[in-house]
Amino acid sequence: MSSSYKSWVLLALFVLFYIIYLLYIIYLLLGALVFSSVEKPEEERLRRELGSLKAEFLNQSCVNITSLENFMEKVLRANKYGVSILYNSSESSNWDLASSLFFANTLVTTVGYGHTTPLSDAGKAFSIIYAFLGVPFTMLVLTACVQRLMHLFTYWPIYLCQRRVGCMPRTAAMVHFAALLMVVVVCFLVVPAIIFSTIEETWSFLDAFYFCFISLCTIGLGDYVPGEQPGQKLRPLYKIAVMVYLFVGLMAMFLVLRTFHKLADLQGLTAFFQLSHCEEDEEDKEPIVETGPDDQPDADRASCKPLDPTSQVSYNSINR
Amino acid sequence: MSSSYKSWVLLALFVLFYIIYLLYIIYLLLGALVFSSVEKPEEERLRRELGSLKAEFLNQSCVNITSLENFMEKVLRANKYGVSILYNSSESSNWDLASSLFFANTLVTTVGYGHTTPLSDAGKAFSIIYAFLGVPFTMLVLTACVQRLMHLFTYWPIYLCQRRVGCMPRTAAMVHFAALLMVVVVCFLVVPAIIFSTIEETWSFLDAFYFCFISLCTIGLGDYVPGEQPGQKLRPLYKIAVMVYLFVGLMAMFLVLRTFHKLADLQGLTAFFQLSHCEEDEEDKEPIVETGPDDQPDADRASCKPLDPTSQVSYNSINR
Repeated sequence: MSSSYKSWVLLALFVLFYIIYLLYIIYLLLGALVFSSVEKPEEERLRRELGSLKAEFLNQSCVNITSLENFMEKVLRANKYGVSILYNSSESSNWDLASSLFFANTLVTTVGYGHTTPLSDAGKAFSIIYAFLGVPFTMLVLTACVQRLMHLFTYWPIYLCQRRVGCMPRTAAMVHFAALLMVVVVCFLVVPAIIFSTIEETWSFLDAFYFCFISLCTIGLGDYVPGEQPGQKLRPLYKIAVMVYLFVGLMAMFLVLRTFHKLADLQGLTAFFQLSHCEEDEEDKEPIVETGPDDQPDADRASCKPLDPTSQVSYNSINR
Repeated sequence: MSSSYKSWVLLALFVLFYIIYLLYIIYLLLGALVFSSVEKPEEERLRRELGSLKAEFLNQSCVNITSLENFMEKVLRANKYGVSILYNSSESSNWDLASSLFFANTLVTTVGYGHTTPLSDAGKAFSIIYAFLGVPFTMLVLTACVQRLMHLFTYWPIYLCQRRVGCMPRTAAMVHFAALLMVVVVCFLVVPAIIFSTIEETWSFLDAFYFCFISLCTIGLGDYVPGEQPGQKLRPLYKIAVMVYLFVGLMAMFLVLRTFHKLADLQGLTAFFQLSHCEEDEEDKEPIVETGPDDQPDADRASCKPLDPTSQVSYNSINR
C-alpha cells in the first residue's frame, strides 16, 4: 500500500468517524422527537384524568388540599422505595429471600429494574461494593458459558451447513446467523412473552414482549416486573424462574452478539468499523511478542502509523 | 505437551468451570442474604410509618377506606408512568424535548432509569425498535471513541513509564492501570458526586455517589435521577449536561475495562479465565485462513481437541 493511498484511507476514516458521531446525535434527537410527540398527549391525558380525580376526591370528602398534598407526598416517597399504601400490596415484602435474590441478580446483570431499591445507607453502600465485584463476575460467567455454547450453536451448525448442504462459507455463516437470530427471538422473546401475558393478568402480549426485550437488552426500565401483583401464587418460585430466564436469555443475547461479531469479522465489517486498519492489525491480530527487544515492534508500529505520534507503544510490545 | 498432561489440564479446567458457576450462585445467595437482612427492618419501619399515616389521615377526615384505596390505586398507577398528583410536580412534563432526549439516551446506553416510561402502545413499540438499532449503534460509537482514547490514555503513559522512568513492562502496566482507575474514580464518581449533592438539595454525598456508580455500571435503578425535583432551574440544560456526563462516563468505564482486559492479557489471566487454552488458540490467536482448503485447519483442530467432537469447525476455518 503506497503512503499517499494510506493517507487518503486514514483521512476517509477520520471523516467517517465524525460522520458516525453526527449520525448518532441525529439518531438521539430523532428518538427524542418521536418520544415527545407520541408520549406527550398521552401524558397530558393521564395528567388531566388525575387532576379531575383529585378534584372529585376533594369535593366528595372533607379533606383540605394541604393535608392531602402532605399525605400524598409521604405516600409517593414510600412508593419510590417499593412500599405501597394499598392494602393488597402490604402483605408481601420486597426484601424476602427470593425478592432479595431477584434484586441481587438484576444488580449484577446490570438490568436494574429499580422497582425496589435500597432504603438504608448501608444497603446503598453494599449495593456499590456488590455490583463492583458482581458485574465483572457475571460477565466472566456469561463469557465462559457462551464460549462453550458457541461450539454447539455456532461452529457446529455452520460446519454442517458447509459439509452436508454444500453451502459457500459466507453463505453458511449468514444463513446460520439469520436462523440463530430467529430461534433466539422465538425462544427468548415471543414464547416468554406469551407465558408472561398469560400469568400476569394486566399484561398484554405487547407489554410482555416489551418487558422481555427491555430486560434482555439490560435496559430494565422496571415499569413491568413479573410477580409484583398482589396475591401472586408461588411468588418466590416465580421470581427464581424469572431470574433463571433472565440469565439464560442474557446468555442467548451474548451468543447472538458473539456470532454476529464473528460474522462481521468474516465479512470484513469489523475492520471497516474499527475505523483504522492499522490499529486493528497491531492490537488484535499481531501475536504478543514473547521474546526479543521492545524496540523492534515499536519501529514496525511507527512505520505503520505515520500520522499518529502517540502510537509507538502498545501492550503487544511488552514482553510477557 | 503430552496427551495425558493435556487431558489433566482439560479436566482441571472443566472442574474450574463448575466451581466458578457454584461460586457465582453462592455470591448471589450471599448478596440476597445481606440485602434481606439490611433492608427488611428498614422496609418494615417505613411500612409501619405509612400504616399509621394512613390511619391518622382516615381518622382526621371523613374519607372511608374503600374510596381512599380506589383513589390511591389510580394515583400510584399514574405515578408509575411519571405522572405525579402533587401540585409542585404538575408543571414540568416528562416528555418535553430535553426529557425525551434524556430518556432516549438512557434507553440506548442501556442505563434505563425507568423514572419515566412510555405510556402508549406506540411508545412501547417504538422503544423496542429504537433500542434494537440504538444499543448496537451506541456500542459502535463508544468502541470507536475508546479505541482512539486508548493511545492517549493507555499506550502512551505506559510507554513513558517504561522509557522515562525505566519501569519493567508488567510493572508499568500495573502502575498505569491503578493510576487510571484512580483518575476515573475521582473524575467520574467523586467529583460528579460532589456536584450532584450540591445541586440536588435532598441528595447526600453517598446518594450522589451511589447514583453515579449505578448509572455508569448501566444498572440505572432510577431511585435517584437528576433534575427531577420540582422547580429545577435550567432543567433542559441540566438534563443535557447529565446526558453528556453519562456518555463520557461510560466511555471512561469502557476505557478502564479495555485497559484491564489488555492488562489481563499481559498477565496471562485472560487465557486462564477463558477456561480452555486450546479454544483460545483457535478462536482468538490463529490468523484467519485466507487461502487453502478447509480440511487442513479442521485436521489441526481435531488434533488439538481430542475430547471435544464438536470442535471441528470454526469461523477461522472459513475462507474470507
